[in-house]
Parts: sequence; C-alpha cells; structure tokens
Amino acid sequence: MTFFEDLRVGASTALGHHTFTADAIKAFARAYDPQPFHLDEAAAVRSHFGVLCASGWHTAAVCQRLVVDERHRHQAELRRRGEPVAETGPSPGLRDLKWPNPVHAGDTVAFVQEIVELRAVPTRPDVGLRVARNTGINQRGDVVYSVLSSTFIERRRHGVRSPGGPP
Amino acid sequence: MTFFEDLRVGASTALGHHTFTADAIKAFARAYDPQPFHLDEAAAVRSHFGVLCASGWHTAAVCQRLVVDERHRHQAELRRRGEPVAETGPSPGLRDLKWPNPVHAGDTVAFVQEIVELRAVPTRPDVGLRVARNTGINQRGDVVYSVLSSTFIERRRHGVRSPGGPP
Repeated sequence: MTFFEDLRVGASTALGHHTFTADAIKAFARAYDPQPFHLDEAAAVRSHFGVLCASGWHTAAVCQRLVVDERHRHQAELRRRGEPVAETGPSPGLRDLKWPNPVHAGDTVAFVQEIVELRAVPTRPDVGLRVARNTGINQRGDVVYSVLSSTFIERRRHGVRSPGGPP
Repeated sequence: MTFFEDLRVGASTALGHHTFTADAIKAFARAYDPQPFHLDEAAAVRSHFGVLCASGWHTAAVCQRLVVDERHRHQAELRRRGEPVAETGPSPGLRDLKWPNPVHAGDTVAFVQEIVELRAVPTRPDVGLRVARNTGINQRGDVVYSVLSSTFIERRRHGVRSPGGPP
C-alpha cells in the first residue's frame, strides 16, 4: 500500500494538530527569525500583527514534523501487517507557499494533506510524482498555511501493474 | 534608502554564510524533521543520501535568519545616518522552493538575495511588490537552496515621486 498506484487525486489525510505556545514561538524566532513580533509580546502589540505570532518558517517546520510523523505511523502499520513499504522522497520542491493569516500564540493549527495531482515521470519509470497540498487551519477555521509539495513515490512494479488488478 | 523606488532589478545582496554542523542538523531534525538521514550518521550512510544531511527546512530557516540579520544591519546603518527606514513585510508568499543538492554535515553555505522583479500593487499605492530569489550555494559551488520570495516594500512617497528625481 501507498505505492504510487495506490494513490488517488482528492484523497485527504489528517496530519494532526499543534498548539503554538508563546515560549516555542520565541525560541524558534531567536534561532531563525528574530523579528520583534515573533520575539516579544510588547513589541508585537506595536507591530502590524498586534499580537505575538509564529514565524511562518516555524509553521512550515511544524507541518513537516507532522508529515514525517504520519508517514512513520503509516509505515509502522504496514510493517506490522507484513505489507511492503514504498520508498518516498526526496522532494523536487515546493510551489505556492502562503501564510494567508498569522499564527498567534496559543493557536491550535490542524494540518491536512490532500493529493491534487499524480503524474508519471518520463525519465524515471520506477517512481511517480505526487503533488499534494498541505494546509494548516486554526481553531477559528482560518487558513494559516498552504503549500503545494511534490514528492517522488515508488511504483509497486515499475509501471507494469494494471490499475485495479490483483497485487 | 531601500524604499521601493530605490530598488533595482538585478541588484544582489550577500546575506552571509552558515556552516551546518552535525549537532545542529540533528537538533533541528529531532524537533521538525525526524527522518533517519537527518538524525544519524550510520542511518544516513544506508540512505540514498549516503551521508548525514540537513533538513531542507533547516536550510530554509537559516536563510530566513540571514535575511533578517541583513535587514536589521541595514536598518541600523540607516538610523545611524539619520535616514528614514522603509517598512517591509509581511510576505504574501513564496514560489518555486527547491533544494537541488543536499546540505551535508560540515558544509558552509553562502546565501545571496537577488531582486528579479519589481511590481506595482494596484490595490495598495503605499507599497510595491519586490520579488527576490534567495539562493544558497555550498563551498563546492553547488546550489543547495533556491526560492522566489515576494515582499511588500513601502514606497517613499505613495507613488508620486518621479524615478531618479531629487529626494
């Protein structure tokens, strides 16, 4: 399961959720994005955000953590059942990364991955390209993160399995 | 300086460089991208990477840190000279994020920002849109990171200053 042939456009996976604490927001910002509105509540009040909010890169990194955790959970389940596990990655890249709304301290963001495109890779018959949209939505229903992520996914048998046929 | 009217397509800024230590690669991966080839040298040898390498999100976060540091340095210099400082951000998003080559433990990556497009924003006469390509290049000259980043930049006078005219 979860070889390229098993994927379907429109399939959606809940990746879990994450609460962004003020402490974690500040710690990430000190290391990677030391802008005042990510570092300090008082400075954030004076900024266009009006309140302490997470670096967009923090949100992106948390999404990646949940993507990896979900993949590991799924692979562990397959191994328990004795089923083969498809190779994934590396990613040839991302498109259209957006942070349409800020993530405020205390917000809980639910992340979802939806498959939006499945494409053959002419130069690589062993894999297919899965394009997925990863979306983060806060507890008020606002989208705070959106990105199109491309990943090479191993084919079950290098292009010779008939769709829907027996394994 | 560095109001939208002061920007030129093709202008390039060295953002500085960063050496990715094995310890920092593993610490970032434990928090945000716990894949074996980011966490453990022996596991990395068995992976398609063959050697411990940084999470792509680690590389992106380091680039953001250098972008912010460079902006703060520049703003401090303007304030020392008594010049006005333009407002920047927030970013409406990123396009075409790529990691064409891995960042290995011990690699030193130099980051550069080049302006590739300057656009009016019809709905916002107070700002213009700067599109810049941020690129990371390792000590062997290989591109390890590339992204197109859009940012709103304050106009000096809201659209009424003639280009090249007196301040």
